[in-house]
Amino acid sequence: MARGTTRRLIGLDPGLRFTGWGVIDMDGSKLMHVANGSIASDAKRSLAERLLQLEEGLLQVFADWQPEFAAVEQSFVNRDGAATLKLGQARAMSLLVPARLGLPVEEYAPNFIKRAVAGSGHADKKQMGAMVSMILPTAELHDEHATDALAVAITLAHAGDFNGRLEAALRKSESAQVLQ
Amino acid sequence: MARGTTRRLIGLDPGLRFTGWGVIDMDGSKLMHVANGSIASDAKRSLAERLLQLEEGLLQVFADWQPEFAAVEQSFVNRDGAATLKLGQARAMSLLVPARLGLPVEEYAPNFIKRAVAGSGHADKKQMGAMVSMILPTAELHDEHATDALAVAITLAHAGDFNGRLEAALRKSESAQVLQ
Repeated sequence: MARGTTRRLIGLDPGLRFTGWGVIDMDGSKLMHVANGSIASDAKRSLAERLLQLEEGLLQVFADWQPEFAAVEQSFVNRDGAATLKLGQARAMSLLVPARLGLPVEEYAPNFIKRAVAGSGHADKKQMGAMVSMILPTAELHDEHATDALAVAITLAHAGDFNGRLEAALRKSESAQVLQ
Repeated sequence: MARGTTRRLIGLDPGLRFTGWGVIDMDGSKLMHVANGSIASDAKRSLAERLLQLEEGLLQVFADWQPEFAAVEQSFVNRDGAATLKLGQARAMSLLVPARLGLPVEEYAPNFIKRAVAGSGHADKKQMGAMVSMILPTAELHDEHATDALAVAITLAHAGDFNGRLEAALRKSESAQVLQ
C-alpha cells in the first residue's frame, strides 16, 4: 500500500469491558485524525468468549484501517490482583492482534503518554482530552477509551523510532548494493 | 469425529514462559492418558511476539489432539502486580484458543484442582505429581507444567458438567420431536 511519506499509526487502550482504539496518519510532524472508537465485550459472557469478542473487534479495526505501526498503553495495577489479571487478559488481545499481522508493537507507560501529549506526567483525564482535541481538531471523540487510545497513537508519533527504522532500512539497502 | 462414548479433554496450565497442556480420554469413569507437553515462549522476544508463540503452540496442540472440552487453571496472584499482569496475558491465550474453536472452557481454582486430584486442597507439587501418575499410569510426564495441566484435565473429568450437557441435549431433541 503506497502512501508516500505518510505512516498510519494505531493506539490501543486495553480493557476487558472496553478496549479503546485510535488511528492517525503522520506525515513528517503533521498528524491527522483518521478514526477512533471502542470495542465492548459482553459482561454476561464467559471470560473466554469476552476475549474472543475483543480479538474479533480488533481484527475488524485492523482490517478496516490498515495501520502500519501499533502502540499499547502499559498498565501497572497493584491494588487488586483479580483486576490486574483481568486487565492482563484483555491487554493480551491488544498485543496479539498486531503481532499476528506482523506489525511492530510499542508499549508506553501512562505517565510517558501524559508527558508526550500534555507535557506533564500528572495531566488529568480532562486535560488529556483537551490536548487530544487540540492536536487532532477534526476528531470526534467516541468515548474516554477512544480518547486515551488516540493519546497513545500521538505518543507513538512523537516517540516512535521511525527514523531509526528508516536509517536501518537505508543501511540495509546500501550494503545490499555493495554486495551486488 | 465419532469416538463412541469417549470424550477427549484438555487441561491447560497457563504461564508466559511455559504453558503446560495435557490431553486425556474419558470413557465413563475410566481415564486414559493421550499426550502432554509444554509450550515455551522465548524470553528474548517482545511480549507481543511471546503471546503469538503461545497462541501458535496452542493452536498446534488443539489441531494435533482434537480435544472436545477444555479447562484452564484459575490464577490468583496477589504478591506482585507486574507478575500478575504477565500471567493474565499468557492466560488469555489459553482461554482464547479453545473459545475460537468453539469449545466450552471451564476454569478451576488451584485448591479445587488439588482436592479433585489428591483429595486435599493442600497437596504439594510432589503429591500432585504422584497422584497424576497413579491416575494416568501410562503418562510420561513432560515437565511440571504438563503435570499440572494433566491435573486440570483430571479435574475436568471429575467435575465437568457432562451429564448436565447430555441431559440438556436430550431435552432439546425431545422437545424438537414434540414440535415435529
